[in-house]
Amino acid sequence: MSSHPDLKEVLQRIQPYIHRTPVLTSKLLNEISGAELFFKCENFQKMGAFKMRGAASAILLLSEEKRQKGVVTHSSGNFAQAVSLAARNIGVPAYIVMPSSAPQVKKDAVKGYGGKITQCAPNLAAREKAAKKIIEETGATFVHPSNDLEVIYGQGTAALELLQDYPDLDYVVTPVGGGGLIAGSALAVSLISEKCKTLGVEPFEADDAYRSLQSGNIETNESANTIADGLRTQLGDKNFPIIKEHVSEIIRVEEEEIIAALRLIWERMKIIAEPSSAVALAGVLREKEKFRGKKVGIIISGGNVDLQNLPF
Amino acid sequence: MSSHPDLKEVLQRIQPYIHRTPVLTSKLLNEISGAELFFKCENFQKMGAFKMRGAASAILLLSEEKRQKGVVTHSSGNFAQAVSLAARNIGVPAYIVMPSSAPQVKKDAVKGYGGKITQCAPNLAAREKAAKKIIEETGATFVHPSNDLEVIYGQGTAALELLQDYPDLDYVVTPVGGGGLIAGSALAVSLISEKCKTLGVEPFEADDAYRSLQSGNIETNESANTIADGLRTQLGDKNFPIIKEHVSEIIRVEEEEIIAALRLIWERMKIIAEPSSAVALAGVLREKEKFRGKKVGIIISGGNVDLQNLPF
Repeated sequence: MSSHPDLKEVLQRIQPYIHRTPVLTSKLLNEISGAELFFKCENFQKMGAFKMRGAASAILLLSEEKRQKGVVTHSSGNFAQAVSLAARNIGVPAYIVMPSSAPQVKKDAVKGYGGKITQCAPNLAAREKAAKKIIEETGATFVHPSNDLEVIYGQGTAALELLQDYPDLDYVVTPVGGGGLIAGSALAVSLISEKCKTLGVEPFEADDAYRSLQSGNIETNESANTIADGLRTQLGDKNFPIIKEHVSEIIRVEEEEIIAALRLIWERMKIIAEPSSAVALAGVLREKEKFRGKKVGIIISGGNVDLQNLPF
Repeated sequence: MSSHPDLKEVLQRIQPYIHRTPVLTSKLLNEISGAELFFKCENFQKMGAFKMRGAASAILLLSEEKRQKGVVTHSSGNFAQAVSLAARNIGVPAYIVMPSSAPQVKKDAVKGYGGKITQCAPNLAAREKAAKKIIEETGATFVHPSNDLEVIYGQGTAALELLQDYPDLDYVVTPVGGGGLIAGSALAVSLISEKCKTLGVEPFEADDAYRSLQSGNIETNESANTIADGLRTQLGDKNFPIIKEHVSEIIRVEEEEIIAALRLIWERMKIIAEPSSAVALAGVLREKEKFRGKKVGIIISGGNVDLQNLPF
């Protein structure tokens, strides 16, 4: 759609605030998958996840007046850290609404990046109420973790860099949570390559995107009992139209497939990736026939894990 | 000493059989240490450790006649895998003597790389006897994991590559086990840089190298109750003279310092390193004043860990 900006300009804007992450390959994982895999390692991104891109993208577009009033988001995960760090580096106050039940280690990480935490009850209504109160009191701008176009464009720059490095990929495969990463990736792919397709992978335990593409409406997850804790969220009205237009398929994977893929990434590639990241590889390994002999880019979305709570 | 070869020629010889591994940096670890750290990531080396370099170096120097008869080593760790893989890739039979008590996962890895395993009782006498028998029966050449000059030269190529990439390092820091890595690294440093010093780090629990440098003789470890399982071995008569001449200091670290450094590498750098690798970083963090403001190369020696048995 011509209404979306050139992601190369977005990348240029956020470049001073992000790493250009490396692309790793593994002969062994190529042998196991039967495909040629290119892992875009956003676990090496600042604060450990691709979310830094979207946070920087959204904050940098604010006017000087809005910057002074700050930004607010609600998240218990990587986006809270991303907004905190991006805001600090750009020179903007960051207000983070977190459920009181969030692990202390995550609260500490947000504090370490300079985010001001407001705690609330662990439900969506309480989160939204707390965020609204902050906005009323401070005039801060709300930034949604995945359903904000500027955030989506920022997230797409990971796939953009991947395709700049490897323009002849047949597929770009990403995990699907709130939909920001896959929507941005799909825009990048459609910008750069005619032949390349964007595929999403999600757990059977949180397959709202799969069902949404089937029904044509945004579906929700009744429960979301998956180890891939970054993927328990649902799509939004900003990213779903992009996904409908540009994503060719959503693959679903079992929990044991996610853990097996996670083990392969840790043991064979020697890198720390989150369970949510392993979901994309799990999808490629589940659908071997589809990917056989193809060049497949996989977004390793992040590497923030709790070493006290591993599935091995 | 002029009796050692130019390690650049060694590197050229083994190049087709190894990866040129990346050098990673971490702003956060620079802040924590007060130094500028350059991590040479041999955990990304083929089979997951620097030992691949030494194995390839030694095997490639064999005559055609000797190659046909094969190579033999005794090891329960990375060198067994390194000899197996290097031998297979060069086209040489590999006989590996392993204690029957070695974990099945290590035996499987050796088998996976094509090594022929002979099991023996878990003591040095039984190992040597088993190796001797194989040599008598097959005419294979024995390759020692750390006390063999060609192996030492091969191990030194990691530091050589690091200094080729960053010629102005003030220190190269390595863990010390059998002495092959630090001896080779010290030769590389002395070849490339006048100002750079080579330092070793070892656990207090296995501080034979520290005591050997003090006494001037090769000392042994009474016990070696350290998590750094690759460092429980002692120096040998081939590497000790090199270490005496070229290594300026051995730092010793506590077990809890090793685990803390390991956690930093995993959580902050998002890479999988072995406890033995974390020893080098632990030494740099223990002696902060020495390294403050300096450029410090650290060899991350390997990344083969048992995910079922982590210290976190």
